[in-house]
Amino acid sequence: MTKLFVVGTGPGDASLIAPRAITAIAASSDLVAYGLYLELLGSVCDGKQHHDLPLGEEIGRARLALNLAAQGKTTALISSGDIGIYAMATLVFELLDMQLQGKENHPEWLDVQIEVVPGISAMQAGASRVGAMLGHDFCTVSLSDLLTPWQTIEKRIEAAGLGDFVISFYNPVSKKRDWQLNSARDILLKYRPASTPVLIGRQLSREDEKLTIIRLDELDAKDVDMFTLVSVGNSESRHIVNGTKEWVYTPRGYRKKL
Amino acid sequence: MTKLFVVGTGPGDASLIAPRAITAIAASSDLVAYGLYLELLGSVCDGKQHHDLPLGEEIGRARLALNLAAQGKTTALISSGDIGIYAMATLVFELLDMQLQGKENHPEWLDVQIEVVPGISAMQAGASRVGAMLGHDFCTVSLSDLLTPWQTIEKRIEAAGLGDFVISFYNPVSKKRDWQLNSARDILLKYRPASTPVLIGRQLSREDEKLTIIRLDELDAKDVDMFTLVSVGNSESRHIVNGTKEWVYTPRGYRKKL
Repeated sequence: MTKLFVVGTGPGDASLIAPRAITAIAASSDLVAYGLYLELLGSVCDGKQHHDLPLGEEIGRARLALNLAAQGKTTALISSGDIGIYAMATLVFELLDMQLQGKENHPEWLDVQIEVVPGISAMQAGASRVGAMLGHDFCTVSLSDLLTPWQTIEKRIEAAGLGDFVISFYNPVSKKRDWQLNSARDILLKYRPASTPVLIGRQLSREDEKLTIIRLDELDAKDVDMFTLVSVGNSESRHIVNGTKEWVYTPRGYRKKL
Repeated sequence: MTKLFVVGTGPGDASLIAPRAITAIAASSDLVAYGLYLELLGSVCDGKQHHDLPLGEEIGRARLALNLAAQGKTTALISSGDIGIYAMATLVFELLDMQLQGKENHPEWLDVQIEVVPGISAMQAGASRVGAMLGHDFCTVSLSDLLTPWQTIEKRIEAAGLGDFVISFYNPVSKKRDWQLNSARDILLKYRPASTPVLIGRQLSREDEKLTIIRLDELDAKDVDMFTLVSVGNSESRHIVNGTKEWVYTPRGYRKKL
């Protein structure tokens, strides 16, 4: 039997990695991941064969992981956060689907036993650091229009505004994409107050973590980079200050009972 | 200094609890939680003072945790899943907010140092067990209308339909609430195909876990109980069958590149 673990290792800090992720990596002979992720993981990766491909080669990375596993090497395909959320897991199953449809020529992939290990995603790390921003209904929207047409993304942001969801923006900007976040802000300003709290969380849970809480009308793509999560509260989210400590929470509606 | 940990312990299985959650519980003298959660946690809870309140006493539980911490007892307020998602964390901050507004009479709460520890939520456990259901933009909607008017919930489901988000329904039914899930289904059927895959995940990651994948038009509240997560794919989610193994994934749009 051949085995592929598809593993999310959480936002960065070792104390937020699920033990199952460590067990999966320890059981593997081959790791497919960006080098940076493996550095954060430390000694559990020692002695493993490390495979990497340049950024942007996501399909190649998923293929490589399936191929290695199909060759009988127990393999872990690794990403930070939750590998099921805007990450590599979906590509593995998309390739499997193509094979099942006869559009790939890798019948050996179908014998690979696949196990996905979830992880804590950036939105959860961010929300917990500032209190309870995801306390009520929320959504996530990726602002990357490399694979999704901007028209679809725009429709989702409008819907999120209409539904008054707390919104976490993944891939808010990149070197080549700098205007989408400001467009998203302008759409949301039609639906919720200018004073709505926004979390800008950079390098969450890592050594150089930086958290900033601003108002929605202060949100600007120039203050955000690709290592940043942007979460926008809903119309009821509250930004509170207790001495030197700031919090953001989204109430569930208990106030009437307090 | 007084300290309150607000801790999510993941979907159930010990291998999905973040080490930081265990460290926080180990450092506490007092635990506020349902007895069932503590059973799943095992020996780390031994020797701690255990406080409980009946189901439904969420505000009382948050007050109790703040009071214990304010008395100098290092306290952990615990829930399963991510305590920041439809759980106790937001109530702690809501009480703090009331105190800051002078609507409570517990100035000692303001001296409590609060640390929130996120956890893997049910939607992530469910998505990982069937593949990569949360591979693209998604949202969560609680179907409990005890605290949120049904009109607001209905508006959110419509918005989720309009935006074609993958949707995870938390609190899909309860003993007293049996019609909301079917209404939600009927709303979504206006926006996405009857064949859209739906995951019914009961007791996720626990010993008696049960996973069922059905079509949206087969979804019926009678097949769901309060220990169940219901996740509905978006219009592009795929249900694939490889021998005895079934998967659901939501593509990000790489197909054109494959």
